[in-house]
Amino acid sequence: MSSLRTPDPNPGWLSEFALDETRSRVPILYVEAIPVRVDGHGQVEHVGMLLRGSATGTMTRSLVSGRVLHGESLRDALMRNLEKDLGPTAFPQLPASITPCTVGEYFPLPGVTPLHDPRQHAVSLVYVVPVTGDCAPRQDALELTWLTPEEAVHPRVSEELEGGRGLLVRQALAHVGALPA
Amino acid sequence: MSSLRTPDPNPGWLSEFALDETRSRVPILYVEAIPVRVDGHGQVEHVGMLLRGSATGTMTRSLVSGRVLHGESLRDALMRNLEKDLGPTAFPQLPASITPCTVGEYFPLPGVTPLHDPRQHAVSLVYVVPVTGDCAPRQDALELTWLTPEEAVHPRVSEELEGGRGLLVRQALAHVGALPA
Amino acid sequence: MSSLRTPDPNPGWLSEFALDETRSRVPILYVEAIPVRVDGHGQVEHVGMLLRGSATGTMTRSLVSGRVLHGESLRDALMRNLEKDLGPTAFPQLPASITPCTVGEYFPLPGVTPLHDPRQHAVSLVYVVPVTGDCAPRQDALELTWLTPEEAVHPRVSEELEGGRGLLVRQALAHVGALPA
Amino acid sequence: MSSLRTPDPNPGWLSEFALDETRSRVPILYVEAIPVRVDGHGQVEHVGMLLRGSATGTMTRSLVSGRVLHGESLRDALMRNLEKDLGPTAFPQLPASITPCTVGEYFPLPGVTPLHDPRQHAVSLVYVVPVTGDCAPRQDALELTWLTPEEAVHPRVSEELEGGRGLLVRQALAHVGALPA
Repeated sequence: MSSLRTPDPNPGWLSEFALDETRSRVPILYVEAIPVRVDGHGQVEHVGMLLRGSATGTMTRSLVSGRVLHGESLRDALMRNLEKDLGPTAFPQLPASITPCTVGEYFPLPGVTPLHDPRQHAVSLVYVVPVTGDCAPRQDALELTWLTPEEAVHPRVSEELEGGRGLLVRQALAHVGALPA
Repeated sequence: MSSLRTPDPNPGWLSEFALDETRSRVPILYVEAIPVRVDGHGQVEHVGMLLRGSATGTMTRSLVSGRVLHGESLRDALMRNLEKDLGPTAFPQLPASITPCTVGEYFPLPGVTPLHDPRQHAVSLVYVVPVTGDCAPRQDALELTWLTPEEAVHPRVSEELEGGRGLLVRQALAHVGALPA
Repeated sequence: MSSLRTPDPNPGWLSEFALDETRSRVPILYVEAIPVRVDGHGQVEHVGMLLRGSATGTMTRSLVSGRVLHGESLRDALMRNLEKDLGPTAFPQLPASITPCTVGEYFPLPGVTPLHDPRQHAVSLVYVVPVTGDCAPRQDALELTWLTPEEAVHPRVSEELEGGRGLLVRQALAHVGALPA
Repeated sequence: MSSLRTPDPNPGWLSEFALDETRSRVPILYVEAIPVRVDGHGQVEHVGMLLRGSATGTMTRSLVSGRVLHGESLRDALMRNLEKDLGPTAFPQLPASITPCTVGEYFPLPGVTPLHDPRQHAVSLVYVVPVTGDCAPRQDALELTWLTPEEAVHPRVSEELEGGRGLLVRQALAHVGALPA
């Protein structure tokens, strides 16, 4: 599955025009990963979040997130986006099951659902991914910060997370038994 | 969530041309449902499959399956497709969690993965859905048949299922603890 | 599975002495159910909690909870405890899969883990169970109250829940996509 | 959680007499692990099975399996049993979530359910556990063999697995998307 190739010559990448048009036609499929550090028994100890400068000059937090390209498997899309955001030495350990821990539904209008994305209707498959190596985010992600579960669910952190993703973080921590009491 | 509306005037339905074009650009998101009859304790006793006449005159089996439209929530897409294929009196009971029991990845080329769809790269979120009412499939689905788990995983039935979906049936039965020993 | 019978003449019920002795030897297996009301699309709208008078005169909240007896299947244990706490006309709909949505680990010493049970080391399999009928709790459960997800995760309600089970409620709501934003 | 200690002086281990007595009173809680080798994208490639000489001189296959001791957390029980059966250099990677991929119910009478255990009523929480190191089973497990998913679900292998656990292997492979087509 990981080296899956289709005969389609389309490279998966779309022009901005084609992507905008497509976004008005169908929900766009994303994968999202919440990087974590685990102890020797698999228990989550820290949650990784990307800290970015937004277009408006404020700081925002985000998860590892990206589109699934045409012809690309979910595992390939996850690995590609993890490497893009965490660098080549993060050594992410994808779970044995590709069934997501939760599914995010983003609509263009804020307030319709807890999650929103002004660009599009998007559906994201969300995974908790332990990483064991060194993370070196690429240029436009200024910093990767490791937070304890208590810090990760703090209301201020939730507000800084783009698109309402503070909810996804709490859902994912609940899934791995690391939601603070 | 269930009566979610976006201000988008686009009704979600696409012309054949626009749909074909879109299919060449991005993976298309589907929901698939495996209708089941359960006993009083929730244990699956029968699996519902649709029996259709194919274009080549042979009989094929299929699951409840359909695209998620632009602006449509996953629960709405599931209910719309269940009603389309099982009629208005099936009374499907969607699970409390919208996280799928498994995810299907379909590629246009047969043999790349166990699942294939000659029309497109599709990703489907798969659910086991108990139905309690009477099922009356619409015209082009000739019959809904209820099979025991043993019958449902029979190799001949698996072969009759479109696109390699016999694997999805076995995955779903494993999920609900009804895979024959 | 639901009418499973073993030839063991032991009725599963133990004397207080035998139960105390057993509790000092092995972890005791429980099932716990969080009753919910769902809308027509399966989305959780209300959470049911039992309000009991405790031995010390204060009010405490609890979930549907009980031991799995010797020779009893998980589904039978769930149905027995649901009927015990919600009465015979609650019509609980057990999920098609018996895999729990989360697992609770209770230790006798408070503070070791978020969950504790002064009587014993217990492990509970936790399920979200939609109920469609009328709930009439038996005598020692004074009241069944239906709370919105927002009310159910309120800190005061969490404190009233026995043994730290407020955490289980939040984990279960996260699982069904009903954790408040 | 992993270094959890209760003040209970009881070491968890029971005399044969006390264990037999306990087994007649309550279901006994087990953890079971299916060791796997995964590729760089997390996809399961091989399944590990223990090959033992049975008391009757025939060869039987088994999974990593053991009781949860009094006062022991699930993660500790998993790690202890993995080390017992795979040796100290197997480096098992417990999943981030302790919710099992499936639950096994064993009854003393064969034929009541697909799983049986002549000694007891047991309930096991089942996990798929990637191992990255060298496995050196202890003395009474003669050999650890790595099978492809196709080999692992072969009827002859299923028959050699104790207690009907061939079903658990197929359920686990279905869970991780590695059930052969």
